[in-house]
Amino acid sequence: MNCGEGIDSRQIDELFINLDPIQAGGRLTTDAMKAVLAYGDGYSVCDHCTKPFRLDHISKPPLAEFHRDLASFLNMDVARLVPGARRGFQAVASAMVKPGDPVLLTAYSHYTEFLSVEQSKGTAFEIPADESHIITPDAAAARIEEVIKTTGKTPALMFIEQVDYQYGNQHPVSDLSKVAHQYDIPVLCNGAYTIGIMDVNGKELGADFLVGSGHKSMAAPAPSGVLATTSEWAEKVFRTTGIKGDLTGRTFGVKEVEMMGCTLMGVTSVGMMASFPHVKRRVKEFDAQVQYVNRIVDALLTIEGTKVQSEYPRKHTLTRMNTTDSFDTVAKTHKKKGFFLTSALRERGIAGILPGSTRVWKFNSYGITSEQADYIAESFIEIAEKEGLVCSR
Amino acid sequence: MNCGEGIDSRQIDELFINLDPIQAGGRLTTDAMKAVLAYGDGYSVCDHCTKPFRLDHISKPPLAEFHRDLASFLNMDVARLVPGARRGFQAVASAMVKPGDPVLLTAYSHYTEFLSVEQSKGTAFEIPADESHIITPDAAAARIEEVIKTTGKTPALMFIEQVDYQYGNQHPVSDLSKVAHQYDIPVLCNGAYTIGIMDVNGKELGADFLVGSGHKSMAAPAPSGVLATTSEWAEKVFRTTGIKGDLTGRTFGVKEVEMMGCTLMGVTSVGMMASFPHVKRRVKEFDAQVQYVNRIVDALLTIEGTKVQSEYPRKHTLTRMNTTDSFDTVAKTHKKKGFFLTSALRERGIAGILPGSTRVWKFNSYGITSEQADYIAESFIEIAEKEGLVCSR
Repeated sequence: MNCGEGIDSRQIDELFINLDPIQAGGRLTTDAMKAVLAYGDGYSVCDHCTKPFRLDHISKPPLAEFHRDLASFLNMDVARLVPGARRGFQAVASAMVKPGDPVLLTAYSHYTEFLSVEQSKGTAFEIPADESHIITPDAAAARIEEVIKTTGKTPALMFIEQVDYQYGNQHPVSDLSKVAHQYDIPVLCNGAYTIGIMDVNGKELGADFLVGSGHKSMAAPAPSGVLATTSEWAEKVFRTTGIKGDLTGRTFGVKEVEMMGCTLMGVTSVGMMASFPHVKRRVKEFDAQVQYVNRIVDALLTIEGTKVQSEYPRKHTLTRMNTTDSFDTVAKTHKKKGFFLTSALRERGIAGILPGSTRVWKFNSYGITSEQADYIAESFIEIAEKEGLVCSR
Repeated sequence: MNCGEGIDSRQIDELFINLDPIQAGGRLTTDAMKAVLAYGDGYSVCDHCTKPFRLDHISKPPLAEFHRDLASFLNMDVARLVPGARRGFQAVASAMVKPGDPVLLTAYSHYTEFLSVEQSKGTAFEIPADESHIITPDAAAARIEEVIKTTGKTPALMFIEQVDYQYGNQHPVSDLSKVAHQYDIPVLCNGAYTIGIMDVNGKELGADFLVGSGHKSMAAPAPSGVLATTSEWAEKVFRTTGIKGDLTGRTFGVKEVEMMGCTLMGVTSVGMMASFPHVKRRVKEFDAQVQYVNRIVDALLTIEGTKVQSEYPRKHTLTRMNTTDSFDTVAKTHKKKGFFLTSALRERGIAGILPGSTRVWKFNSYGITSEQADYIAESFIEIAEKEGLVCSR
């Protein structure tokens, strides 16, 4: 079946256990599917938009309440919906970074964080990771000192990933924020892999800005996300427009400059909102998900030569493996070459790992059941044994 | 029925003829509805994303082809998807406008065009409209001369609305572009009310940048839109990233700075793409839509005291009426006050006009059938006659 000329229907999450690193937390809930159908039309949330004419004031559907709930869920003071976490980074960088300002990122910052700095014409300085692939407060302090010394300026902003996209490691955001705040550097915590997956408490993290992704981790359609901040910074990043039509005298009410006015006027905001009650529940069940991923990693580690490059035991479901000395040795002589592994997984109903990967690869098991965890673990071992690799179980 | 806690199902377009000024062109096609269901999940278009890892290179679903088709449909050289027309304005302003630069807009520019100038710290100068509510080349030339004289700078950019949101009037973009180009001022043509509704030829319009809205006029979910440009300007507005991780040496491939990398990674791009074949057909049938709106306006004008404030005969379905001397005289003594009109329309299955309006109000009849046009026309007259207004038919 197709859904339009040349567009095949997508059924990956119906037919497979999907371990894609970026897709696991963005699968819609049933309520979101219903919402997507009911609110698919363009400006579908604008039926009851009245003064002061802004998305976060609409009460039917209950977007105003949703905005308040989101802020409270994150333990922040104010929240806005944005078209993806990247647009949250962009808004904050645009408000905070002046051309030439030094900006701190980390060795694991996402490309969109870098782009936001580039667009604001800031200069990027990375905080290095330690040998365990963790960004430490000591490294942050050292880098801050160095940047201040070499540039003569205090960094305008510090980006920290709560869980990074490369290793899925949890970084000590709260301690990192303390260091930054000693230098009066505001902190943007990137929660793209955590908000909607784990319990995230912005104030405890010391975040001045907290950014989440709807389509990555909040079971919402793309592009969607959240930018939350404190009362202190809200006036800056959510400042309302001051521009005026010089002849007509027109002004533009309470529209917020960095938001470009309203942001998600239909399927994206309602999808996010419909999933939200489920998201609030599922963050309480993250421990089980961590157990499952560790079960899979433990199984993989029984295959001789296999290493886990992420911190271990795992604290998050996004995980980076190194099978150069196990699966990749098979690939060298296998008739399917590097594709044998993902192909064998696919035959077993498991998808989402980059096809052809046998050296360093990532998977994300978020959202699976206990039975599926066992099945995935067993599948890896089965494939390894079938290809003559030694397994120590 | 509801679709999630506290979220009622939306059925306005199922139960009513919807004349909402901003919603008419954004109703999904059946193919888009199917696409929305199949591609609702977060990063749903990323299953087959391979090098160079960018949305407009994905061939399954056929986004790469869609990008090329979009550019050709608009007779421009390059097109990108953006999260709403506003994000197209933002990208162009960010690339073109330096702090303090004068920027030309018009007396009818949309607030999001102003916000993009404000965010880029440009200074806004409006081109006034003439007494027919049209932006003329003479007015543009005079304003350009004046701005150059008073600021000592040539404007960095000129925004023109092909059809404006206030009157739904068609402005002479091609002639306005010629004037701007005489001063080497690049032109952004705002096609939010035209692209996907009418045949739009960017090169004929002389547009350096052409911006359309998916959720306003291309039968797509929100937020979605298109930014198209010429080969000349593509390198500037779609420049690829040059930033580097100073310690890791990381660079970020072909991601485009003003796009913040990939833009619409799921339901929005696929919804737009699924509707596109229908959109290509419907722009050829716009003449019929213009006939229908004129039939409605003609009926309204038979009601004594009623004026049409938009240009007349209508060239676009978005229309501004003034019924201060007709329906508003009824409102003064009616027990429902100003709500009598929209309430009477609603009883007849017609929705979308701002509740309570009896003086100046807008409607957009885009997408109706000939029979519906007659029905709407007749309904207005019926309501007028019932309330004792004189009708000259």
